[in-house]
Amino acid sequence: MTSEEQDTARPRRIRLGMVGGGQGAFIGGVHRIAARIDDRFELVAGALSSTPEKALASAAEIGLDPERSYGSYVEMAATEAEREDGIEAVAIVTPNHMHFPVAKTFLEVGIHVICDKPMTTTLAEAQELAEIAAASGKIFVLTHNYTGYPMIRQARAMVAAGDLGTIRMVHAEYIQDWLADRAEDTGSKQAGWRVDPAKAGAGGSIGDIGTHAHNLACFVTGLKVERLSADLSSFVEGRELDDNANMLLRFAGGAKGMLWASQVAVGNENGLSLRVYGDKGGLEWRQEEPNRLWFTPLGEPKRLLTRGGAGANAAAAAVSRIPAGHPEGYLEGFATIYAEAAELIHASDAGEAPPDGLALPALADGIDGLAFIEACVASSQNDGAWTAL
Amino acid sequence: MTSEEQDTARPRRIRLGMVGGGQGAFIGGVHRIAARIDDRFELVAGALSSTPEKALASAAEIGLDPERSYGSYVEMAATEAEREDGIEAVAIVTPNHMHFPVAKTFLEVGIHVICDKPMTTTLAEAQELAEIAAASGKIFVLTHNYTGYPMIRQARAMVAAGDLGTIRMVHAEYIQDWLADRAEDTGSKQAGWRVDPAKAGAGGSIGDIGTHAHNLACFVTGLKVERLSADLSSFVEGRELDDNANMLLRFAGGAKGMLWASQVAVGNENGLSLRVYGDKGGLEWRQEEPNRLWFTPLGEPKRLLTRGGAGANAAAAAVSRIPAGHPEGYLEGFATIYAEAAELIHASDAGEAPPDGLALPALADGIDGLAFIEACVASSQNDGAWTAL
Amino acid sequence: MTSEEQDTARPRRIRLGMVGGGQGAFIGGVHRIAARIDDRFELVAGALSSTPEKALASAAEIGLDPERSYGSYVEMAATEAEREDGIEAVAIVTPNHMHFPVAKTFLEVGIHVICDKPMTTTLAEAQELAEIAAASGKIFVLTHNYTGYPMIRQARAMVAAGDLGTIRMVHAEYIQDWLADRAEDTGSKQAGWRVDPAKAGAGGSIGDIGTHAHNLACFVTGLKVERLSADLSSFVEGRELDDNANMLLRFAGGAKGMLWASQVAVGNENGLSLRVYGDKGGLEWRQEEPNRLWFTPLGEPKRLLTRGGAGANAAAAAVSRIPAGHPEGYLEGFATIYAEAAELIHASDAGEAPPDGLALPALADGIDGLAFIEACVASSQNDGAWTAL
Amino acid sequence: MTSEEQDTARPRRIRLGMVGGGQGAFIGGVHRIAARIDDRFELVAGALSSTPEKALASAAEIGLDPERSYGSYVEMAATEAEREDGIEAVAIVTPNHMHFPVAKTFLEVGIHVICDKPMTTTLAEAQELAEIAAASGKIFVLTHNYTGYPMIRQARAMVAAGDLGTIRMVHAEYIQDWLADRAEDTGSKQAGWRVDPAKAGAGGSIGDIGTHAHNLACFVTGLKVERLSADLSSFVEGRELDDNANMLLRFAGGAKGMLWASQVAVGNENGLSLRVYGDKGGLEWRQEEPNRLWFTPLGEPKRLLTRGGAGANAAAAAVSRIPAGHPEGYLEGFATIYAEAAELIHASDAGEAPPDGLALPALADGIDGLAFIEACVASSQNDGAWTAL
Repeated sequence: MTSEEQDTARPRRIRLGMVGGGQGAFIGGVHRIAARIDDRFELVAGALSSTPEKALASAAEIGLDPERSYGSYVEMAATEAEREDGIEAVAIVTPNHMHFPVAKTFLEVGIHVICDKPMTTTLAEAQELAEIAAASGKIFVLTHNYTGYPMIRQARAMVAAGDLGTIRMVHAEYIQDWLADRAEDTGSKQAGWRVDPAKAGAGGSIGDIGTHAHNLACFVTGLKVERLSADLSSFVEGRELDDNANMLLRFAGGAKGMLWASQVAVGNENGLSLRVYGDKGGLEWRQEEPNRLWFTPLGEPKRLLTRGGAGANAAAAAVSRIPAGHPEGYLEGFATIYAEAAELIHASDAGEAPPDGLALPALADGIDGLAFIEACVASSQNDGAWTAL
Repeated sequence: MTSEEQDTARPRRIRLGMVGGGQGAFIGGVHRIAARIDDRFELVAGALSSTPEKALASAAEIGLDPERSYGSYVEMAATEAEREDGIEAVAIVTPNHMHFPVAKTFLEVGIHVICDKPMTTTLAEAQELAEIAAASGKIFVLTHNYTGYPMIRQARAMVAAGDLGTIRMVHAEYIQDWLADRAEDTGSKQAGWRVDPAKAGAGGSIGDIGTHAHNLACFVTGLKVERLSADLSSFVEGRELDDNANMLLRFAGGAKGMLWASQVAVGNENGLSLRVYGDKGGLEWRQEEPNRLWFTPLGEPKRLLTRGGAGANAAAAAVSRIPAGHPEGYLEGFATIYAEAAELIHASDAGEAPPDGLALPALADGIDGLAFIEACVASSQNDGAWTAL
Repeated sequence: MTSEEQDTARPRRIRLGMVGGGQGAFIGGVHRIAARIDDRFELVAGALSSTPEKALASAAEIGLDPERSYGSYVEMAATEAEREDGIEAVAIVTPNHMHFPVAKTFLEVGIHVICDKPMTTTLAEAQELAEIAAASGKIFVLTHNYTGYPMIRQARAMVAAGDLGTIRMVHAEYIQDWLADRAEDTGSKQAGWRVDPAKAGAGGSIGDIGTHAHNLACFVTGLKVERLSADLSSFVEGRELDDNANMLLRFAGGAKGMLWASQVAVGNENGLSLRVYGDKGGLEWRQEEPNRLWFTPLGEPKRLLTRGGAGANAAAAAVSRIPAGHPEGYLEGFATIYAEAAELIHASDAGEAPPDGLALPALADGIDGLAFIEACVASSQNDGAWTAL
Repeated sequence: MTSEEQDTARPRRIRLGMVGGGQGAFIGGVHRIAARIDDRFELVAGALSSTPEKALASAAEIGLDPERSYGSYVEMAATEAEREDGIEAVAIVTPNHMHFPVAKTFLEVGIHVICDKPMTTTLAEAQELAEIAAASGKIFVLTHNYTGYPMIRQARAMVAAGDLGTIRMVHAEYIQDWLADRAEDTGSKQAGWRVDPAKAGAGGSIGDIGTHAHNLACFVTGLKVERLSADLSSFVEGRELDDNANMLLRFAGGAKGMLWASQVAVGNENGLSLRVYGDKGGLEWRQEEPNRLWFTPLGEPKRLLTRGGAGANAAAAAVSRIPAGHPEGYLEGFATIYAEAAELIHASDAGEAPPDGLALPALADGIDGLAFIEACVASSQNDGAWTAL
């Protein structure tokens, strides 16, 4: 990102493939826009659907060369790995249960992977995938996209700089309402797989959105959740997976916290928020107003820090495209993940160390996410007993 | 309240005494203003401090007849009970540990009691006081003042009317920052007694403010907390009582919730908030903007309901004094408790049933509050085990 | 106010009478509560309605001695002036056209006056009343109540201290919607007189609320409006007076501004707001969130200053009753006017200079208000020509 | 936009050139991202700077083929018009004074034009350009980008559908603070040309941002400003053009309004807002929270309409990319203009009528903008006399 201001010539675009993201999908389109915004990738191949005709129709819609629209990801991996102009990276945007086999397949033929979260559906798979990735020498990026928001980068840098002192409390929420009634009965593809343990894994709301809240809390504070006590519910009748999760957190080092994930909180669209308090100050951020960060130094008035504004720090500026007051949103935050992934891939391909200042979620974050999900389920099944991650 | 609009002549003012509330106190002045706002009480006697000279000076400041400024509450109770024009009710605004003996003393000489919360410092005392009050035939009102806010009354009526359907989740917070460092070392009388178990009881933040959040959650939803799992902390060095409390709640009937009380959350002044979600809608309210209530019916846009505005219901209107857009605040909410206490006292003195529509916290609420505090402490000491109230 | 914290004994309560404010009125009840909040006045007499039976019924409702409930203000002035325990001050809360004759009558018998705004219905009357008041030696207080809000006092002190540098722009709004359709046809007493030139004077929205916005802009900045260019409208059919007023302002010294008053802006309850910008900073305040003041020093992040909070100055603290986060509202701001009026009256009666630090609107403000109304009407009739005040 | 959901294959990308937008520029980068987001354009040529070396360096930075990086727009127009794979459209992102000659040059060689606002620096030029464009048969799109925000499209559709009834009042603001001191002395290229009449034209803040506010007011309401009365100021010493503009508006049909444009309002980053009131309802929108639109039907509670939420209409949905709660911002709104421009260009090239439902600013809007600027200057110079557009 901020490519417009660089001193040197832009490196060529990375050739990208995509698995998943055909008609009716949501996150595939998001990845494609994100990949275009900073112009570091060129989408040239896809296995957009597991239904071949749908894959072809989806490819036509987005202007893919029909020859490089594949009916299966296995075929795509094999073919593209052989082409001289084959894809260098693949974006995996399928339902959760396909993340592991697809990522494995591409890593093993030497193609970098950009994968939606959660990394896999089980912790064991996540650990196995980490080994596969390490052996492959290829880049694995996990799109915990909210870490790409400028004010989240700012918050992280402020905590690291000690602006909040020793962290005492961390409160994270991710609350929505789109599953407040039986959306899965309406034919919604989005709802359908998310409530199906075979496709989503053991976590419902905790896997789909709770992992984002957990990741963000850790990303900003630099702290690990050591133990948690969870109370998962399936409020909507007939639903197997949790649609609401209340939990208490204990962080390594002594901080404590709470995390609430819900997809049945009527009146909340995409209510991800984070509040962090230390002995010297407090920070508050809400995803629906992502350009604002509230900072209160102990004993002083609350200050409104804005993306690009007078109080923005270098970490925020590094991932901002436009001036203060011109809202950047969800797609821009996502694009930052892609832009940084491009930098990492170029460095990797050149055999260089990763550039300074990147903050990309990767294998360890994916493993943490699965450990979180499994601890939530275990704690809740064990009447809320404190459970280690 | 709304006395200005009544059809009939106003009943005479009730003669009120006060115990506590001398120089350096906070809540005593609040009670006095609250008692004046709707003109139902006349403050005529006081034992404003346990230090006689300070009691006298405090009485002079507020214009009390020096003859009726007492050096001790025991003397005041005895003397006033004998006077023909003696006080009919007493407001108890001392630190927590004095609530029990003072209330007992006045009830036993036949004087109505308006008492600050928490009712006592132990559940056993609360239960004993309830028996004393019952035996006395006198009114006991507990000033859970936030229940007097119009939009809280509105929320309660909406839940009761089924506007939210079956309640699923209840999230309450009461977060402040005034004890984020060692305020007790600065000579603050307010801080001093609140962190002292001998004066505050077993609860720090949970007793001082957590009880308000608990009370409000129950008041609005009409639900009881059946079990809780608590994690109490004393973040500020050297503090014996909790200054932060994270907890999970389970309500009778199946609703679940979270409650966070903190006095060390830097950047929060008096952040009491309540969010309630059912299968048909959601409600959100923040004490610092008390004239607003957000209501989202399932599948419809969020609506801003305002005190006195187009969406205000009868329950809100009954406790509003002025039109929409003219903010009523903390003192007005508190005054509603006094105004309703006056109605209850008049009815009691006349041997009549309590008037319809009152919603005053009383003995049962006080007992619930102490049960809440004791359950919090027990759960936290038992590693967060689910603990019945 | 803040009487609870004073060092010395409280002076006795001032005996107050009231003209207007009977059943169906709004502002009379407000004045009564405001007078009680800080306990400086005792309401002992009234001519609450021009209809004698209604006056008597209204007096009974608020607990006035029937003997001191008068059928006319003339009788009341004459009788009370003769009583040894007669009223010392009168609150005038009638429709606008009665302000002049009532104020004149009481001043001439030596009774202090607290009068609702606008001072009179014409500038000529206002000037005559100022002479009468001066000759009487009695206090005349105009209840421009919004000047009593703590954060308005803070803003004024900040401008005076140079925190904003040289003032460049001043933007004031007072927008409501309660007259967006023909409320005057519904039997509303409030609407009825406000749209009747015989009772309201030449100004509709500009007199009723525009004067508040004008007053507030001048109060905070310490600047005078020198010229204005106004465009008045009567949007609701059949209405004679303006229900919407757009205007440009030029202040002495070079600042410029805009003022918008409307009673037909659907979705606005009592939207009084003020924004002031200088070469060193900006201030923004909204009446519906009166405990907050936004301050941006040039080149720094915006700060949220709160009543009682870390950034509150002495001017705000002097008129605050309770801590930060416990909202004070409209009635408390109004009460400050009464509390300061009491201090002024005590000083006057004692032949002393007015106490330091008071900021009460008085005769000059009333004259400015009428000059404003007449300039608005004249400019608008003259196709928006710049018109001097 | 919403290309992801279309039924048919995507048309090929349009070959785009750019004039202006080299190093140090702001809006050029915005246009490039906007053109990429929906993948309808491919940038293949540029004359990015009037300094040839800078043009070349700028081209390298963004990955343009050096052969198609031109030292002058004249050369670029001539050369590209001759190439078989030459550009089909050009984006003009220079300072204002170059809009006319560049647009003229490209239109005359048969290349479609997408031009930043204001269209030209004088009304005469704008009118001449409109004739040139008409004669060319080519598309001319003016990037009044704020018209691309979904909730602005929603607002426009709601007004057109009569949801507000007859429009009475329209209040538009566009206030910033980045020119509150002498930014032009700091070497800022952005500030430099904007305060220079030779490059910006006769309008300072009115041309740079006031035109946006004017355009938005007209776009949403469908009304024309008939006359205005303006008071322009240059508050910062030594500045020739206005940096603050206060004005009253009268719309055809009887609505009235106010418009405030400022670049010296300390504490405002990019404060474009619009409020529209009719006899049946009111709408309020702020650019810095672009995903929200407040709607109050007369006599009902205020409703929060959100992009993608329960209250979103078809006009908003048509230009939304992602679900509710995932903020779309400035770049997405801008991208909508590009996406619609692509549809218009394809239709034009195919000799078809423009697709239904587009809402692109074009020649007439450009002329209106210049008429607005000239009327502002004329009115202000004539002491605020009402001046026709």
